[in-house]
Amino acid sequence: MKTLFAVTIGCLTAASGAADPLPSWNASTPRQSIVSFVEKVTKEGSSDFVPPAERIAVFDNDGTLWAEQPMYFQLFFAIDRIKALAPQHPEWKEKEPFASLLKGDVKAALAGGEHALVQIVMATHAGLTTEEFEKVVTDWITTAKHPKTGKLYTEMVYQPMLELLAYLRANGFKTFIVSGGGIEFMRPWAEKVYGIPPEQIIGSSGGLKYELRDGKPVLVKLPEIAHNDDKDGKPVGIQRHIGRRPIFAAGNSDGDFQMLEWTTAGKGPRFAMIIRHDDADREFAYDRQSHVGRLDHALDEAPRRGWTVVSMKNDWRKIHPPSQGTANPTD
Amino acid sequence: MKTLFAVTIGCLTAASGAADPLPSWNASTPRQSIVSFVEKVTKEGSSDFVPPAERIAVFDNDGTLWAEQPMYFQLFFAIDRIKALAPQHPEWKEKEPFASLLKGDVKAALAGGEHALVQIVMATHAGLTTEEFEKVVTDWITTAKHPKTGKLYTEMVYQPMLELLAYLRANGFKTFIVSGGGIEFMRPWAEKVYGIPPEQIIGSSGGLKYELRDGKPVLVKLPEIAHNDDKDGKPVGIQRHIGRRPIFAAGNSDGDFQMLEWTTAGKGPRFAMIIRHDDADREFAYDRQSHVGRLDHALDEAPRRGWTVVSMKNDWRKIHPPSQGTANPTD
Repeated sequence: MKTLFAVTIGCLTAASGAADPLPSWNASTPRQSIVSFVEKVTKEGSSDFVPPAERIAVFDNDGTLWAEQPMYFQLFFAIDRIKALAPQHPEWKEKEPFASLLKGDVKAALAGGEHALVQIVMATHAGLTTEEFEKVVTDWITTAKHPKTGKLYTEMVYQPMLELLAYLRANGFKTFIVSGGGIEFMRPWAEKVYGIPPEQIIGSSGGLKYELRDGKPVLVKLPEIAHNDDKDGKPVGIQRHIGRRPIFAAGNSDGDFQMLEWTTAGKGPRFAMIIRHDDADREFAYDRQSHVGRLDHALDEAPRRGWTVVSMKNDWRKIHPPSQGTANPTD
Repeated sequence: MKTLFAVTIGCLTAASGAADPLPSWNASTPRQSIVSFVEKVTKEGSSDFVPPAERIAVFDNDGTLWAEQPMYFQLFFAIDRIKALAPQHPEWKEKEPFASLLKGDVKAALAGGEHALVQIVMATHAGLTTEEFEKVVTDWITTAKHPKTGKLYTEMVYQPMLELLAYLRANGFKTFIVSGGGIEFMRPWAEKVYGIPPEQIIGSSGGLKYELRDGKPVLVKLPEIAHNDDKDGKPVGIQRHIGRRPIFAAGNSDGDFQMLEWTTAGKGPRFAMIIRHDDADREFAYDRQSHVGRLDHALDEAPRRGWTVVSMKNDWRKIHPPSQGTANPTD
């Protein structure tokens, strides 16, 4: 009898999910809103119930799942790659934006605006086959360190967001990344770090060309932009890849505005979340004036649209996972 | 004791999978090859074991999952739509390819080749929002009948392929469609008919524009081709959407050649299958000379590449599911 009692209690505890799925979230409003939304849409028989197949959750990456200061991490990757490729490109010594980058003057290099940025991306992301590029990214992401924190970039992911991803998946959600970053830049490591497989990653992408090299087929990355997955491009990318409107969306900047707008304009229960970087001590503090991850219009709109604004300072108990390799995601 | 015995036998029977998962396949070579491949890649500890996340299976649609004669079913849809839209386009009476189509002369209309086809697709697939288009497709697919068989088009799917899809999924595969057909044309019904959700459907696609109409966001279908998912375009579509090379691919025409080539060029165990339409009595018989679904080069290449050629006549016990609404797919 004693044994049966113990087993029963054990089962009840497991069933009620006694282990807190969101331990890095303070017990403030955002956490309560998330949990009450998830309980609502997963409760069978309730008018708010959403079938598992329709539980699509989309997450921006830069500034939402990992940090993005002092500049997008993919730009650090591109600069390191320009340095590595420079010996094969003597002409870069005289040619902007490469000349400034090679001198270490990123500001001067980026003074050329979008044109300079496109040149940097083309020079560093095209020409290789998809498999060669995957290897270059994997080598970089497992060794390169952030200039300010000295951590691996994958250690600068947000612990509360890892917990949120796992919590949603445990409740039957399918989690996607919808990022302005490069799709082929994220795929090699996102499954290990976030538990999100390549087919659930949407990002900006270049053209691809199928060809035979020594009789073996390859896909070569072309120097052209096929899809810019930012602002208006986010709902377009969502439709093209998922073909179904998400019911949950998380972002952190004005670049995510249309994704949040598209998500919440659907019928039935919807959840939109904005991560606000207001913690200068533990991370970075920036919003309306920032060149990277500017949050202005979306911040004004959030209250009247019922979007949840998460303060990193007040709502998060921890920012990053304990250092030492990458996070421990579930599949 | 008798009861316990019965229960035990019941469990054993279920565990050994006594119910044949491929009842519409004859016990010929293709069926044996499929089963031995699946058993090999799912056997833990074996050198051929493939982790579930990498068990990606891709299927062409027209001629592989459903019929495609006397012409692609999407073209029947387009023609019906031209008839429906004609009152709003009096100019079509004088303008090819519309004039011929409205007179019922499809051959004359298509004499204009690819240019004519693009005009038909643009006129019938663009201009609407994605949600409006979804409704048009759903209305058509649930009512329109095939001119020869009188069946709903979704009743002209192949029963052995429905079983194969379900069998692969039961063994941890993720099944995708990779079709030259329109992505937005397949998504509204493929989940119900094939058990394949919208996010696992890859197809040809047009441009999309995000805009606000009466303050509500919509995605408008543009009259431009963003991706042509045929031939070289199939590996490109696979890389863009899935980001991982499939280990199993099925097609039926030269348009699938590159998809089969790309799939089988990967390391480790791979399976490629070509459905051969050689059953004039129960379906259609066509290959090297056909305008629709021509199978010529891929048929020559199959033996030397170790690709499995499935004869509909010899290897399939049944062709279509029993008539009466759509098939009964699992999720």
